[in-house]
Amino acid sequence: MNDAQKLLDAIPKALYFDEKDRFFILDQTKLPTQSIFEEQKNVEQVYESIYFLKVRGAPAIGIAGAYGLIISLKNSTDLDLDSFLKLVYKNADYLNSSRPTAVNLSWALNRLSSLAKNFTKDGTAKELYEVLKQEAISIHESDIKTCKEIGIHGAELIKEGDGVLTLCNAGALATGGIGTALAPMYTAWSRGLRFKAYSSETRPLLQGARITCWELNKFGVDTTMIADSVSSYLMKLGRVDVIIVGADRVANNGDAANKIGTSSLAINAAHYGVPFYIACPYSTIDINSKSGDDIVVEERGPEELIYIKGQQIAPEDIKVFNPAFDVTSNSLIAGFITEKGIIRPPYNFSKS
Amino acid sequence: MNDAQKLLDAIPKALYFDEKDRFFILDQTKLPTQSIFEEQKNVEQVYESIYFLKVRGAPAIGIAGAYGLIISLKNSTDLDLDSFLKLVYKNADYLNSSRPTAVNLSWALNRLSSLAKNFTKDGTAKELYEVLKQEAISIHESDIKTCKEIGIHGAELIKEGDGVLTLCNAGALATGGIGTALAPMYTAWSRGLRFKAYSSETRPLLQGARITCWELNKFGVDTTMIADSVSSYLMKLGRVDVIIVGADRVANNGDAANKIGTSSLAINAAHYGVPFYIACPYSTIDINSKSGDDIVVEERGPEELIYIKGQQIAPEDIKVFNPAFDVTSNSLIAGFITEKGIIRPPYNFSKS
Repeated sequence: MNDAQKLLDAIPKALYFDEKDRFFILDQTKLPTQSIFEEQKNVEQVYESIYFLKVRGAPAIGIAGAYGLIISLKNSTDLDLDSFLKLVYKNADYLNSSRPTAVNLSWALNRLSSLAKNFTKDGTAKELYEVLKQEAISIHESDIKTCKEIGIHGAELIKEGDGVLTLCNAGALATGGIGTALAPMYTAWSRGLRFKAYSSETRPLLQGARITCWELNKFGVDTTMIADSVSSYLMKLGRVDVIIVGADRVANNGDAANKIGTSSLAINAAHYGVPFYIACPYSTIDINSKSGDDIVVEERGPEELIYIKGQQIAPEDIKVFNPAFDVTSNSLIAGFITEKGIIRPPYNFSKS
Repeated sequence: MNDAQKLLDAIPKALYFDEKDRFFILDQTKLPTQSIFEEQKNVEQVYESIYFLKVRGAPAIGIAGAYGLIISLKNSTDLDLDSFLKLVYKNADYLNSSRPTAVNLSWALNRLSSLAKNFTKDGTAKELYEVLKQEAISIHESDIKTCKEIGIHGAELIKEGDGVLTLCNAGALATGGIGTALAPMYTAWSRGLRFKAYSSETRPLLQGARITCWELNKFGVDTTMIADSVSSYLMKLGRVDVIIVGADRVANNGDAANKIGTSSLAINAAHYGVPFYIACPYSTIDINSKSGDDIVVEERGPEELIYIKGQQIAPEDIKVFNPAFDVTSNSLIAGFITEKGIIRPPYNFSKS
């Protein structure tokens, strides 16, 4: 193992599964003041960890669902195969209901359920358990590999002394690996490149402040936090050389939905001539969405703005408009950093 | 008095001075959960009210300083004139040190001190007290008039059904009157026009959430709060017809310093074709500053970002870049709403 790889292994993790088939989740709701890994002892606990956002980020939730199913089966391998299969389906359904809109969660659990369905009738529960466990590990390893490749491609965009700005958390703690938007930073830093990371705090839920600042800082990347309203001024000062953010969904024409505030960043970047990139696994690209107009933006409740950690900051009866995402126009995006390389405009993913 | 004027009189106030020479300040640090007027009983209390930001906003601070000096003299009118004059200067100096960089504060206190200095040697302390009191009231009334005229000129920019976006608080609670950026909204609303106000929360100190939402809501303007990162998306949705913000200092060429986030708003407004206005008294224009390059931007401490009302939201050792202001380029500003009317580009205030 070379030094750069050793460094990458030191990046904070959202979860891990050990050789004794034990599954641990970092409780991200306690960040940044405490970083505690909780062993997940039963399926109810995993359900709650997902439901209460102790684990978050689409790839990480999928992996947590898969490992969650495994540990829920661990002590039942003495059952006959039929009873064991029933338990697999029941627990998979239960876990899937913890966040019904999380595509990666149902995708991972379906993958395990399908394997179980197609498992030979002659086999034992113990054998099926091993098959499912290997599949869960393989889902995790595949995500690690995707993140790593995004990091390798994206690192080419960062030069010595650069300022690199990101929003929200598309980091290690959102994935099973080293993240998507943060993967290029981790990769460049572990190769010895020195630059300045800027993390926009990301109101209302403050994922930039709470999570991105925490994980970059813990790893040792030179990180500065800013209020979301500061990014434009930072660009005016010439302190931002590249912007890299994640995406929740990318339309076929390259319009990209991501955390609210992303499109403002991209518009300011265009104004100041700063290249604006999106880092995401290829699976985020939805070729069935023709353009951003096909993407529905989730609106969330007023309490996320009116209260911060229980402290009231606005009149309790004030109206609030709280969209979780916005859609950035393809014309503002310099490229998509994926595991297959950097994709440049014009975008037409169904033909690429 | 007509109905519109009656309505305007119901706008929340930052402070008032009554017929018994008593002076009251609304403790804005307790907003939005409590709105308490505190009678200012001595000069030390006024000093603390200014120092601890119970009263804030350049015009309001100036008026508070003037009334603060008056109540500090109220019980000393039996002194001989020389002793009374010494008390005037001493208390003015003391009050002026409560916020040394507040130009309006030293301006108002100097105005009172100069009057005292030039007062006839034959007069009594009682007579001088009355002169100074009338001058303090006149400073306040002049600000009320300026705000009112800004409101009248700016109201022309608002149409029935519009969306009007503002940032920070350049409202009634920042002045002695009905505010600067909020004056057009109050004026239009009191004339019966119905529109939607949007208040950007204004991290880090949340003046938009805590103060603008509170005062507009209390008056009855239909107000919606947004995170600062939402303004761009709101414009994309076509829900913003005009943006009106205040200014801390305007250079001769029209470059304008205002709360951090203002220049990003203006850049997004240009992108979406939304007219962007600055409302400010003519006294905010500094013809000695040629351009925005001459304006020094204050940087504030990291604790304003890392903690919100005592709650830690980021690693306590994270680096923070926390500029209080930014400078918006004159090319992005559709006009300045002043008490003399709306000034349109090209800007060259020393010649206008």
